[in-house]
Amino acid sequence: MAYELYYWDGLQGRGEFVRLALEEAGAPYVDVARGEKEDGQGIGALMAGLESDEPYPPYAPPFLRDGDLIVPHVANILFYLGPKLKLAPRDEGLRIIANGLQLTIADLVTEVHDTHHPIASGLYYEDQQDAAKARSKDFIQHRMPKFMRYFERVLVHNPDGPQHMVGTALSYVDLSMFQIVEGLRYAFPKATKHLAGHYPNVIALHDAVAARPAIVAYLQSERRLAFNETGIFRHYPELDRATH
Amino acid sequence: MAYELYYWDGLQGRGEFVRLALEEAGAPYVDVARGEKEDGQGIGALMAGLESDEPYPPYAPPFLRDGDLIVPHVANILFYLGPKLKLAPRDEGLRIIANGLQLTIADLVTEVHDTHHPIASGLYYEDQQDAAKARSKDFIQHRMPKFMRYFERVLVHNPDGPQHMVGTALSYVDLSMFQIVEGLRYAFPKATKHLAGHYPNVIALHDAVAARPAIVAYLQSERRLAFNETGIFRHYPELDRATH
Repeated sequence: MAYELYYWDGLQGRGEFVRLALEEAGAPYVDVARGEKEDGQGIGALMAGLESDEPYPPYAPPFLRDGDLIVPHVANILFYLGPKLKLAPRDEGLRIIANGLQLTIADLVTEVHDTHHPIASGLYYEDQQDAAKARSKDFIQHRMPKFMRYFERVLVHNPDGPQHMVGTALSYVDLSMFQIVEGLRYAFPKATKHLAGHYPNVIALHDAVAARPAIVAYLQSERRLAFNETGIFRHYPELDRATH
Repeated sequence: MAYELYYWDGLQGRGEFVRLALEEAGAPYVDVARGEKEDGQGIGALMAGLESDEPYPPYAPPFLRDGDLIVPHVANILFYLGPKLKLAPRDEGLRIIANGLQLTIADLVTEVHDTHHPIASGLYYEDQQDAAKARSKDFIQHRMPKFMRYFERVLVHNPDGPQHMVGTALSYVDLSMFQIVEGLRYAFPKATKHLAGHYPNVIALHDAVAARPAIVAYLQSERRLAFNETGIFRHYPELDRATH
């Protein structure tokens, strides 16, 4: 049976980290909110999932339904799917390592979101623009380099080589790193101009993922939405580095 | 062998969610940064752990060392420890549910942190106080109620009864919920004054955890640090609800 992914339509957002894993694995899945109402899908099905009286409701999208089990949170979904999609290490300890790395990626994603919404998710960007400029400046100067240095260091110290974030083979963590680089480059083209020079292994990993046949096919398909200003990674030129 | 918990000394912070699980289980552990330099502990040992050239370094505290394995991130540590401490459901699906709930708690913790540091972790509170007031107002009006309503709903819909967040027995998620209520009451005494009326099952769970012998003993011990204004939950009266 196909996995059911529940996430907002119209943006890549946090759902994209799950889509990349499903696409790489060629796993059957339904992107529920993007489906048709006649098929029991669409935004109404997403809202029904959020407001359901079933046990253990999810707090927010994305969540994944696999039969009776509803799995919320990107890192949790990927931890659950990883072994089934053959995108997780076989070793139990390395699976815990992978989960830790994915949670650091999740923290970075939250910080990226807060560059344009530092005061309130419920307010428009335009109503918190001054705070957004201050937070983005700090993000570009301090936070992004700290995360990127860390990811580079993880690759350099991987005992199985710098081709992968964890272990000897492609994992969902590698796929998420691809999305991080794509997203940061979209949101902050000036601030990310020299990523390849500073973090060569991170960019090599990004490029290797981008060249995988299933990922190439996905990125060219209609299933891949374009980045836009309703997602996590938003390009507001006034938040990018002024000079470089 | 004792578990080694690595977290900053002087504050409860994110480390406290791990401490509560270790304490409830009576598990042997060393709170490394609070130990003595002569014993290879203290803040130097924490910094060495962060800057180590070992494979898979942690990005930030807290992290747990269990033999050769270094486990970072609160939710990941608790997912790893849960079964060993008998503080996780036996059912694999419910363990995934527990992890999802813990990640929602982690998101709330991050939002609480950002009430006093909405612009930059590296800046003083006093240098971002206006933004902190705006974010705290939104947190108290919208975010805290949304999270608390959700947790109440999880308890009400637990098919095994509203005594626990997941399954039939105490889990690390319940212990974390205790800490959430404690922390919110410390940080926002006015805004949380009516929690018991609005979220009776959440408060009943808090009270049940607070009455457990191992938790009572821990809270009275020197191992439990007091809340203070270097932690996640900080009491700045100007950020609390003005009227209620």
